[in-house]
Amino acid sequence: MLRLIASLLLIYSEQISKDLLCNSYKLESSGHSVNSLEIQEETFASKSGIVSSCNLRIISSKQMENAGNHLDIEVPPVEGVAGGGTGYGWNDGNSHGSNSLHGVVDPTKIPSSDLLHVWCMPSTTNVGQQEMPRPLEPISLLVARNERESVQIALRPKVSWAGSSIAGVVQVQCTDLCSTSGDRLVVGQSLNLRRVVPILGVPDALVPLDLPVCQINLLPGETTTIWISIDVPPGQPPGQYEGDVFLTAIKADAETSAQSLTKSEKCQIYREIRNFLEFVEPVDGKPLEGMVERVNSACGVLRRILQSATFSEFSLDNGSATPSLPAVFGISETVIEDRFGVEHGSDGWYDALDKHFKWLLQYRISPFFCRWGDSMRVLTYTCPWPADHPKSDEYYSDPRLAAYAVPYTPVLSCSDAAKDALRKEVEILKTKAHWKKAYFYLWDEPLNLEQYNAVRRVSSEIRVYAPDARVLTTYYCGPGDAPLAPSSFEAFVKVPKFLRPHTQIFCTSEWVLGNREDLVKDIIQELKPENGEEWWTYVCMGPSDPHPNWHLGMRGTQHRAVMWRVWKEGGTGFLYWGANCYEKSTAPSAEIRFRRGLPPGDGVLFYPGEVFSQSHQPVASVRLERILSGLQDIEYLKLFTSRYGRDEGLALLEKTGVYLGPERYTIEHMPIDIMRAEIYRTCRA
Amino acid sequence: MLRLIASLLLIYSEQISKDLLCNSYKLESSGHSVNSLEIQEETFASKSGIVSSCNLRIISSKQMENAGNHLDIEVPPVEGVAGGGTGYGWNDGNSHGSNSLHGVVDPTKIPSSDLLHVWCMPSTTNVGQQEMPRPLEPISLLVARNERESVQIALRPKVSWAGSSIAGVVQVQCTDLCSTSGDRLVVGQSLNLRRVVPILGVPDALVPLDLPVCQINLLPGETTTIWISIDVPPGQPPGQYEGDVFLTAIKADAETSAQSLTKSEKCQIYREIRNFLEFVEPVDGKPLEGMVERVNSACGVLRRILQSATFSEFSLDNGSATPSLPAVFGISETVIEDRFGVEHGSDGWYDALDKHFKWLLQYRISPFFCRWGDSMRVLTYTCPWPADHPKSDEYYSDPRLAAYAVPYTPVLSCSDAAKDALRKEVEILKTKAHWKKAYFYLWDEPLNLEQYNAVRRVSSEIRVYAPDARVLTTYYCGPGDAPLAPSSFEAFVKVPKFLRPHTQIFCTSEWVLGNREDLVKDIIQELKPENGEEWWTYVCMGPSDPHPNWHLGMRGTQHRAVMWRVWKEGGTGFLYWGANCYEKSTAPSAEIRFRRGLPPGDGVLFYPGEVFSQSHQPVASVRLERILSGLQDIEYLKLFTSRYGRDEGLALLEKTGVYLGPERYTIEHMPIDIMRAEIYRTCRA
Repeated sequence: MLRLIASLLLIYSEQISKDLLCNSYKLESSGHSVNSLEIQEETFASKSGIVSSCNLRIISSKQMENAGNHLDIEVPPVEGVAGGGTGYGWNDGNSHGSNSLHGVVDPTKIPSSDLLHVWCMPSTTNVGQQEMPRPLEPISLLVARNERESVQIALRPKVSWAGSSIAGVVQVQCTDLCSTSGDRLVVGQSLNLRRVVPILGVPDALVPLDLPVCQINLLPGETTTIWISIDVPPGQPPGQYEGDVFLTAIKADAETSAQSLTKSEKCQIYREIRNFLEFVEPVDGKPLEGMVERVNSACGVLRRILQSATFSEFSLDNGSATPSLPAVFGISETVIEDRFGVEHGSDGWYDALDKHFKWLLQYRISPFFCRWGDSMRVLTYTCPWPADHPKSDEYYSDPRLAAYAVPYTPVLSCSDAAKDALRKEVEILKTKAHWKKAYFYLWDEPLNLEQYNAVRRVSSEIRVYAPDARVLTTYYCGPGDAPLAPSSFEAFVKVPKFLRPHTQIFCTSEWVLGNREDLVKDIIQELKPENGEEWWTYVCMGPSDPHPNWHLGMRGTQHRAVMWRVWKEGGTGFLYWGANCYEKSTAPSAEIRFRRGLPPGDGVLFYPGEVFSQSHQPVASVRLERILSGLQDIEYLKLFTSRYGRDEGLALLEKTGVYLGPERYTIEHMPIDIMRAEIYRTCRA
Repeated sequence: MLRLIASLLLIYSEQISKDLLCNSYKLESSGHSVNSLEIQEETFASKSGIVSSCNLRIISSKQMENAGNHLDIEVPPVEGVAGGGTGYGWNDGNSHGSNSLHGVVDPTKIPSSDLLHVWCMPSTTNVGQQEMPRPLEPISLLVARNERESVQIALRPKVSWAGSSIAGVVQVQCTDLCSTSGDRLVVGQSLNLRRVVPILGVPDALVPLDLPVCQINLLPGETTTIWISIDVPPGQPPGQYEGDVFLTAIKADAETSAQSLTKSEKCQIYREIRNFLEFVEPVDGKPLEGMVERVNSACGVLRRILQSATFSEFSLDNGSATPSLPAVFGISETVIEDRFGVEHGSDGWYDALDKHFKWLLQYRISPFFCRWGDSMRVLTYTCPWPADHPKSDEYYSDPRLAAYAVPYTPVLSCSDAAKDALRKEVEILKTKAHWKKAYFYLWDEPLNLEQYNAVRRVSSEIRVYAPDARVLTTYYCGPGDAPLAPSSFEAFVKVPKFLRPHTQIFCTSEWVLGNREDLVKDIIQELKPENGEEWWTYVCMGPSDPHPNWHLGMRGTQHRAVMWRVWKEGGTGFLYWGANCYEKSTAPSAEIRFRRGLPPGDGVLFYPGEVFSQSHQPVASVRLERILSGLQDIEYLKLFTSRYGRDEGLALLEKTGVYLGPERYTIEHMPIDIMRAEIYRTCRA
C-alpha cells in the first residue's frame, strides 16, 4: 500500500543553458513545467499521508535541438525510380548540415552537442542499438515516496573522436538532486545510473555505472542507453528537487575503470562530508528556526544514507510498507550452487542465498528458493534457516515480504525424522504474527490423479497439526486421467472443488484464459473467500505474444501489463516460477544461456554481476524494472479505489487506455503517465 | 582473365593439436585433406599458365570440439505445456557441462578453449552478433593466383574473464603461410585480418586489425567475427602453404593499441629480416642447386613485398591482368570534398581522389568520379588530371583498369572554351593505345524526349572529331512523352534504335527484367555488335529482394549473385552508380548515414576509415568483398568456357545449383566451392 506519496515531475524543457564546464550537455533541473499535466507545488494530506510535488527539468544546449530537428527536416533529393538516388551534386548549395566540424575532431575544442546525439526515452521503450536519434520532447514522471521511477537517456555519436576501435568516450557525471529547503536525493542512493546491455540483441541487462562520475564508450553507428532510476525514500520530504547530469565527450585516457572507481568513491565521500558541513556549520547570526530546519534536513541526509542499499543488512528499513499484492518469485538454489560453487549448507551457500533474498526484496517481490524434483514435485522455502534461528524472524517479519514459503522438507526424504522436523518447524512458526504470510507450495502443475492426490495427501498431513496452514497449488488443467467435466476449461474450473480443503491458494496460469477475460468470473465464483480461499495467477511459457508476459523481445508496456492484468482480473496474489533459471554453468562469470525449449528470458529476470564486471551484485533486467513499475501501478490503483471504489478504478484504466484486456493495452508510454497523474490529482484532495 | 592460377585448399580438420604456447586455439595448416573435393598436389600447365594446389588446414584443440558438440547434445529437461520449464533439480546429476571452470576465471591458467567458442563460417554468411556457436566442420577454399579468397572466424565468450564491461580480451596472432619449398604468403600482405563491424545491425564494415599481433575485445553474449583474406600474388609459386593463427584469451592490460601497433610493426620487420637470412645465409656445404633455389625463393619474398599494397604507388603491378568484365563504379567527388574538407582542384583534392582510385582498383573495379546535376545530367571522369598530364597515362594504362570515363566538361559550362578544351583532351586520348577503354557517360537515365535529345546532341558533337568515341547511356525506359512502342517493355527495347548512333554502350537496369530472364534475348537482338554496340547492365534501388543486389541485409550469396547474373545473361560490362554516397558530412569521422529514400547500403560499398580508427584507408564492406568474389567467379567461368564453350559453362552453373535465374540461386556456400573446384579440376589438364 502507498503509505506516503510525494511526486516528482521530470520535464524536458526547450530552454537553453549552454554549459560553461567542459562543453557538456547539461541535464539540469528547475521549476518550470511545460507539460499539459500541470502539477502545483503544494503540500497536502492524502488518506495515507503527506503528498506533494516537485519538478525536475532536463535542459540541453541549442546545438542539440538543432541536430534533432535537422534530422526531421533534411530530406536529400532522390531521383529515378529503378534508377540511382544520387543525392547531392553541384546544385546542392549549403542547405545540408549547419554542422561546422572539419578534419580531425578534438573533443576538448568542440561542444559535446556537435559530437553526440542525446535524447530521452520512457522506461517502457526497448531502446535498441539501432535506435535513431529524436528531438528532445517534454516528458514527465510522477514519483511517489517509497517508489522508483526510471527514464532512459540514449546517446549516439555524430562523429568519431576516439581514433581507436570505438567512436568516443563520454564522461557521465551526476550531482545530488536538492530541494529548495535543502533536502536531497543522493547520487548513488536515490539516483542511480545503469548501462542498458543487449541480451540476444534485445536491450535487457542493466549494468551499474560508477557514480558520481564514470566513462562510457560509444561505438560507431550504435546507440548506447543509460537507465536513470530515482528511488524516493519513504521518509523523503516533499519538495522540488534539482540536480544535473553532465554528458561530456572526452579524450580516451589510460585511466582504468578501477582507478576511476577509486577516484569517484573519494569524490563522493568528499562531497557528502562537505555538504553536511555546509548545512550544519554556519550557525552564527542565523535565525533559530532556520538553524533547526538545516540541522533536521542535514540529519535527514545522514539517516537516508543509513537506509541505503549499502547498509541494508544493518536495518530493517522500517519505513517500508508491505506490498498490497503478494508477488512470490522463485530463485533456483541449484543454479546458485552450481554457478557460484557453493556447497549446500556451507557458509558460502547461506551467504549467497541471503544476498539473493535481500536483493530481490527491493523489487516488492517475496522470494522463495526452489528446487525441482521428478513430476514437478518442488521444494520451496523463503528462509534457508530453520524457524528457531534468529534469521527466521528477520526474514519473515520483514515488512517488505508479503508472503513466505514454508519448506516442506519431507519432499527430500520421506523419513519420519523429516516429518517430525517439519512439524516442529510449523509449531514454532504458527505462534508468530507473521504466520498469516505463510504458505506451502508443494507441487508445480499437477497433471493427473496421482499428482493431484499427492497434493491432497501432503496437505492433509500438514493440516493435522496446522489447520490454518495455506497450501498454494499452481495448475492449468484438471487431472487428465480423471476428467472433472466434459470440456477442459470446465474441468479446470472444477479443480477448487476437487482440491478443497487441501488447497487455499488456487494459482492458475493466465494462459488458460486466452483473450477471454470474461472467463475470470467462472473461476472466481467457484471459490469460497469466506473460507480464506484466494485466486492467484501466474505467467511462464504462456501466454505468448501479444498477451502480457515477461519474455525478451516483448514490448515494454507488454511487460508492465502483466500487473495491470492481475489488478483488473482481481487476483489477490501472483507467482513466478524462476528469476535466475539460466542453463547450468559452474563459473559465476560464465555466459548466460537461456534454457532450451523456453522462450528467451522466461525464468530469467536478473543476471550474475560477474558476467558484466567484477561486481558480485546481481544485474537487473529491464523486465524486472517493469515488473516493479507494474507492482507500483497496482499501489496507485488501490489508492484510487480506496477513495472512489473499484468501478471507478476500472473506468480510469479504460478511460486512459492503459489496459482494457490481454490484447488491448497501451503500446505508448503516455497513457501510463496520464493515469498516474490523474490518481495523484484526484487523491491529493 | 585468369593469367596464372594456383589453388589453395583451406580445410578445417578434426585432428587435434593442443597448442603448447599460451593455451591458445591453434589454427594450423598441414597437408591432409578431409574434404570430398580431393585435390592433388601437383603442378601442371593450363591454357593460361601454371596451375597447382596447396592446402591450408585449420586445427583446434579437443576442448573446443567438445564444446561445439556439447551444444547440440545438451537438451535440458523442459516440462509442462503452459507451465514452467524448470530445468534441473536434485535429480540432475552431472550430465550437464564437462566444463571445469569454478570461481574467478584467470585466463593465464585456463585453456582458451574453455573460455571461448571458436568456429568458422564461409564468406557468404552474414555472421551477426547473435550468431550461435557451431561445431567445427571441414570446409575448403580454392584460391587462384591473382585472386582473393576469404573466410570468417567467429568468436564468442563462454565466460567473462576481464572483470570490466567487456567479457574478455583475445590476442590474435598470425604467422606467414609457408610452402615446403620455402615460398611465403606474407602476413599483412597476402594474409589480412579484419574485424566485421555491424552497420545498422548488419555485419558489413571490415575494419583492419593490426598484424601480426592484435587484441580484440569480446562482449558478454555477443559473437565477434574476424574476416580472414588470402591474396595470392600473380607471381606466387604453386605449393602447399602452412601457417598458424593463434587465438588466446588474455588479461586486459594497460597497453594501448598504439603501443601494440609499434610492437607489432617491430615484430614484423624483425621476422622478415630473420626469415630472409635463414633462407639465404647457410651457404657452406650445401649443394649448389639448393642454394640457387633458396636465393630465388628468398628474393621472391622481397619482390612480393615490393608488390604489396604498401608500395603500390611505386609500381604498376605489372603482374596484374585486366579484368574480363569492365565493372565501372562511381565515386562521388562531392562526398569526398565535403567529408574530407578538400577544395576542388587543390593538392589535397587530387590526393584524396588518387587514394580512392587506387584503393578501389584492387577490387577489379574501374572507378569513375561523378557529380550529379539537374535532371540527372552527370559529370563523370576516371582521371582528375588532364590528358596532357603524366598521371593521365598512368591511370588509363593501368592494366587493372578495364574502362575509363572521359570527362565531358562542357556539362559544367557550355562555353566555347569548355568545348575547345574537351576537343583538345580527346585529340590527345584518341592517339593512345588505351583509347579503346574510353567511354563517355553523359546522362543518368533519360526519361523524356528532351533528355534523350540532349544525349543525342552531345554525342553528335563529340563524334564530329572522335567518330569512334563510345557513349554509354543508362536507361530503364524509353522517352515517356514520346512512346516508342505501345507497351513500356517494347518501348524500352526500342531505345537502341532511337539512340543509334549516339550511344554504343546500352546500359540497362536489371530491374526491368523482373524474373523474366527470357526477355534478355529481346534486348540483345536489337543490338548491332558488329558496329561495336554492347549491352551492359546495372543495379541500384532495384531490383529488390529476392533478386540479386547489394543492399544491406540481403544474403551473402545474393550479393555475389549479381555477377553470376551478369555472366549468365551475357552482358559485356556493368555499371554501379556510387560506392561512397553517404549522406552529407563535413568531418572524415562523422557517423555514416545512408541517404533517405534509398535502401540501406545502396550507393555505399565502403566507409571512411576515420569513422572506425585513426586510419585514413577506406574500410571495405562485406558486400564489396562479395562483389570481388563475383568478379573472380566470372574469370573462372570464362576460363571454363574458353575450353568447353558457353553452353557447358551455363550447364555447370545450373548443375552445381549456383545460379539458375534471378529467383533461383544458391543460398548455401557449398555449391560455389563445388563449381570452382570443378573448374579447377577440368581446366588443369
